[in-house]
Amino acid sequence: MSYFDVASTAPLHPVARQALNAALDEGWADPARLYRSGRQARMLLDAARETVAEVLGARPDEISFTASGTQAVQLGMLGAVAGRRRTGRHLVHSAVEHSSVLHTAERYAAEGGEVSAVAVDRHGLVAAEEFAAAVRPDTALAVLQSANHEVGTVQPVTEVAAAIGGVPLLVDAAQSVGRLPVPSGWSLLTASAHKWGGPAGVGVLAVRKGVRYVSPLPADERESGRAPGYVNVPAIVAAAASLRAVRAEAERENSRLHALVERIRTQVPRLVPEVEVVGDPVRRLPHLVTFSCLYVDGEVLLGELDKAGFAVSSGSSCTSSTLTPSHVLAAMGVLTEGNVRVSLPYGVAESDVDRFLAVLPEVVAGVRAPLGLDLAAPAAARETLVIDALGKRCPLPVIELAKRIGEVEPGGTVAVLSDDEAARLDVPAWCEMRGQEYLGERAAAEYGRDRGSAYLVRRVG
Amino acid sequence: MSYFDVASTAPLHPVARQALNAALDEGWADPARLYRSGRQARMLLDAARETVAEVLGARPDEISFTASGTQAVQLGMLGAVAGRRRTGRHLVHSAVEHSSVLHTAERYAAEGGEVSAVAVDRHGLVAAEEFAAAVRPDTALAVLQSANHEVGTVQPVTEVAAAIGGVPLLVDAAQSVGRLPVPSGWSLLTASAHKWGGPAGVGVLAVRKGVRYVSPLPADERESGRAPGYVNVPAIVAAAASLRAVRAEAERENSRLHALVERIRTQVPRLVPEVEVVGDPVRRLPHLVTFSCLYVDGEVLLGELDKAGFAVSSGSSCTSSTLTPSHVLAAMGVLTEGNVRVSLPYGVAESDVDRFLAVLPEVVAGVRAPLGLDLAAPAAARETLVIDALGKRCPLPVIELAKRIGEVEPGGTVAVLSDDEAARLDVPAWCEMRGQEYLGERAAAEYGRDRGSAYLVRRVG
Repeated sequence: MSYFDVASTAPLHPVARQALNAALDEGWADPARLYRSGRQARMLLDAARETVAEVLGARPDEISFTASGTQAVQLGMLGAVAGRRRTGRHLVHSAVEHSSVLHTAERYAAEGGEVSAVAVDRHGLVAAEEFAAAVRPDTALAVLQSANHEVGTVQPVTEVAAAIGGVPLLVDAAQSVGRLPVPSGWSLLTASAHKWGGPAGVGVLAVRKGVRYVSPLPADERESGRAPGYVNVPAIVAAAASLRAVRAEAERENSRLHALVERIRTQVPRLVPEVEVVGDPVRRLPHLVTFSCLYVDGEVLLGELDKAGFAVSSGSSCTSSTLTPSHVLAAMGVLTEGNVRVSLPYGVAESDVDRFLAVLPEVVAGVRAPLGLDLAAPAAARETLVIDALGKRCPLPVIELAKRIGEVEPGGTVAVLSDDEAARLDVPAWCEMRGQEYLGERAAAEYGRDRGSAYLVRRVG
Repeated sequence: MSYFDVASTAPLHPVARQALNAALDEGWADPARLYRSGRQARMLLDAARETVAEVLGARPDEISFTASGTQAVQLGMLGAVAGRRRTGRHLVHSAVEHSSVLHTAERYAAEGGEVSAVAVDRHGLVAAEEFAAAVRPDTALAVLQSANHEVGTVQPVTEVAAAIGGVPLLVDAAQSVGRLPVPSGWSLLTASAHKWGGPAGVGVLAVRKGVRYVSPLPADERESGRAPGYVNVPAIVAAAASLRAVRAEAERENSRLHALVERIRTQVPRLVPEVEVVGDPVRRLPHLVTFSCLYVDGEVLLGELDKAGFAVSSGSSCTSSTLTPSHVLAAMGVLTEGNVRVSLPYGVAESDVDRFLAVLPEVVAGVRAPLGLDLAAPAAARETLVIDALGKRCPLPVIELAKRIGEVEPGGTVAVLSDDEAARLDVPAWCEMRGQEYLGERAAAEYGRDRGSAYLVRRVG
């Protein structure tokens, strides 16, 4: 079984397993107690808090451990709006937040709060100026995810924080903590250990010093009065240990996973007819990609992929048991049916990804077969050959173009990706000389690259 | 180190450790997912729920797993009063509930609810009729612990439930689940796995079918909408496995622990001057005993006992870091200073208890030494020799009395415990014949026995 659903929960990191068992031996006692085993548990808890604080760029006393990411979001949001009650009762969040944010906002609205949801573009991306425009003098709190849990789009957190001025910003960083650096600008930050390879049962709520916070729950002296109940030291120790481990692995794994996801992003439209890859091609999580297949029931597709040995997810990550259309995809205005989210774990084998790409076309075709549709060939096959000449100096980009244009049928398109300025002149010139049609220049970002341009050529003959 | 603080947290049961590691292998995936590993996690979760339901005498769909006992209490209380809002906004609880109950009641009062605390007797025991007298037509909820967490007194839950009629009763069973059968009569029941040898991070909230419940938290589809956040399947599996295991051991261990606690209850007043053993001597948890030492700072005493190798607790179990006087002891009207709570784990060695009794007198004397007090001999030494003749047929009780009365000084008292009706006539008769003073008959319960009478004799010569 290839597990491609790390955005739901990551397999327990070996370091977490080790730390958990060690802490069950050494840190099982009540950290509030004054005897030796209690003091030992307290020391382990303090050390874990320092580790997490360091990774998040926070002070240890700004960190409270909660029972889950959802609880961190609920407490963070309700505590922050309660702390700012005198300022007003208005809440702003993006339209593509996790359901825990939306549900907490609904509860707030039911109790008299006013809520604005900021629209996103077709890639699920928030625009800082649009977000700022939704903020009012009576806005108590703004909420924005660091990256979207369904489509992987990385949000402009720092820009939004700057644009909204003094309004506290709660950043739901569940999908990025451990993988990407924490963006600056947050006033409150939430995360969930089981998303980064820690155990279940540990969330993080960070509240910057100076941010007004009034607990929405009955009094409890644990975790600075922010998270109630007995403190789960062994799980917290394991969470911190695995956070440190994944941060150390992140750079290497991220570029590897980024390339594997790029392969999926590129290949799926070439292999499967009537499919749409969604989410921002450039500002994206390294390990996550989502696509939607027209004419396909998502639940059936997931079942068939499961039989083929692939665990993937579909639709809104927290409503999959009901399989209602994802509010994220709906807000983006993209296809919501036949939705598949692939999120790759650290250490995934390249061959597993290739096997997925090999199996996917027949699985989708099998699900579609009873419909008796006559589908066109995959859109990408009709469209564009991408020649990646990034980093190559002229005349290499033009030489590649000349060598490979024969791979597309007449009428087909070639995109030459290049970051050499000379290509801007050379490609049109080559077209004129050889009687091919120059179609113009686009950002290479549209092809998932972070620099350079794409020069489009239609093969005429 | 002898760990005598199982009422704070029990060491992880070996079965729990084993089940935890197995479930980390087999049940780590998201139980809301439809692929194989998700379905497997769901099956393990369902099985754990059935186990817990069976032990609690509930239906599986009445059980929700929370993140802690405190969270179970908070959600249970707030959800139940919200569900009964139309009936009224009045809450009744005993004066000796856990701080999580008191804090939730405070929050309820701050938001417009009215709260009545029912007094207890000197043993910390609630009287069913007094509890019922506090209930009014607008009472939304009554809350009563199954057994007190500080002094071990077992409350008359079933009698209270019957006395208050249709008012829902929330029973905080944190200290008794796994050890004693669950009392009947509850409408809501809360518990905490780490108290019975399960892992931290698992609480239980049981809500009887038909009891109105409105979640006080934002919507979340997990755990019947009652407990938010990702479900911690491995910890829940471990909690259920250890619950089953401790229930199977309970009968044997309970009678052993009951006898060891009885030894502490009897010996401490004989060994330490100016000490008061508190809590009901008969209606009590098998493993827990609390005593208070006059002229002693509790924190200092705990520190000295820690140095001597004993981990014990003091005062209110959830405010020990502040060491404010325990609200439980205050409500009982007993001494609150120099308080020590001993709660014995399953499997504790008898020799550890004896070592505690050997060490305690000098530790207390050492703490008191700087005060320069001239303390009388231990009260018990001046008072009563207990002859346990329970189960012995006449004339054995009188023979024991004749043989042992010389052990007390003239003026001292002997209590003959007997369940043979003949003793009621024989002991006074023997006194008249031998010129000793017969003082009368008391319930053997006053000496911690569950049957028989105590016949008191003062040695005259």
